[in-house]
Amino acid sequence: MTVLLSIQYDIYTANSYDMNKKTKDGRKLRSQNTSDHILSTIYRLARAGNQDINIDVIAKEAKLGARTIFRHFANKDALLEALCKKAEENIVNNFPKKSENETLEKRMKSLISFLCNMYSRDKYIYYWTAINIVQSEQVYKNAITMYKLIRMNILKILPEIESKDQREQEAIFQILSFAFWRDMRLFSKKKKKEIEEILIFNLKKHLSTK
Amino acid sequence: MTVLLSIQYDIYTANSYDMNKKTKDGRKLRSQNTSDHILSTIYRLARAGNQDINIDVIAKEAKLGARTIFRHFANKDALLEALCKKAEENIVNNFPKKSENETLEKRMKSLISFLCNMYSRDKYIYYWTAINIVQSEQVYKNAITMYKLIRMNILKILPEIESKDQREQEAIFQILSFAFWRDMRLFSKKKKKEIEEILIFNLKKHLSTK
Repeated sequence: MTVLLSIQYDIYTANSYDMNKKTKDGRKLRSQNTSDHILSTIYRLARAGNQDINIDVIAKEAKLGARTIFRHFANKDALLEALCKKAEENIVNNFPKKSENETLEKRMKSLISFLCNMYSRDKYIYYWTAINIVQSEQVYKNAITMYKLIRMNILKILPEIESKDQREQEAIFQILSFAFWRDMRLFSKKKKKEIEEILIFNLKKHLSTK
Repeated sequence: MTVLLSIQYDIYTANSYDMNKKTKDGRKLRSQNTSDHILSTIYRLARAGNQDINIDVIAKEAKLGARTIFRHFANKDALLEALCKKAEENIVNNFPKKSENETLEKRMKSLISFLCNMYSRDKYIYYWTAINIVQSEQVYKNAITMYKLIRMNILKILPEIESKDQREQEAIFQILSFAFWRDMRLFSKKKKKEIEEILIFNLKKHLSTK
């Protein structure tokens, strides 16, 4: 969800790039829309598993000129920051919310279903984050931001977690983490249904007992 | 523990490499010793966080000629396989064993202490594995081999795990995984002592109750 490792942004600069390339469709869009369009394009490319997302690839896929992209994001860190903001918005808008009268069981299920879908859709973005986290300060910052945001939203829909011992809370959050999902998918080769069942079984063990 | 991503092995081949470079110290060692010496050198470089481990770097650090290295490992996959075998040996030899009369508590503690030390020492190797696992079939194979071997050894010292529901077993193994250790270290910024305490607390919750 967080950020892209492989954006080979800094190998180009706005100045060195060929400014004669025309930005056709982009000019008609308003500035905010264009930024959004660029970010959405990058996410689409990343989710599809593209490993080398550079300015040329983004420009071609977004049907914009490279100059337009540089006008919106002057350097790699600015782009990474914007990608993180967009991911945050996405979390805030789509995370399942706690509604009145909803049983614990129902809330656990909708949370797990949401997380598993997100992990499955964004797995390549998570892999890239894992790769770049050691090398890029900005990627590490973004990853921490997303980590905290996801924890905060989990607590909102499952406030029961807060009554547990701090050490148990760590294990509960781990059950709901991308890391656990990935280990079951990649190493234990579990299917989607099996994973969801394992998560609900273990979450219940922590939260359903008195 | 498993394998190295960044070994830029295939950019060289034995034929294209300058064969005139002398192999001084290497000739005195016997073949098995030389292989071992090469592998140990790579592990030492990797553990120190070196990201670009190519033939020149290995040769220099091992005080061997590139030709000697190629004689022992003809290509990148052969080298990766050998690194995995060495890691397996390391696990088998050093994993804490279940001795008679040892309490569950004591076995849990020595297991957790062993795993945390291993994760801390080999964290860069795990990061590299995570990076390369998507791209290299051999790295993926190695990772699965290590994953199974670690699980098998955990079951030997803590046979109590096998009496648990399969779904609960997944959560128990996750508590003992590199992924959980890394998330606490990298995102929650926990200290060594805190991590060990969290692990023992949660492992006890699964295994100590009737």
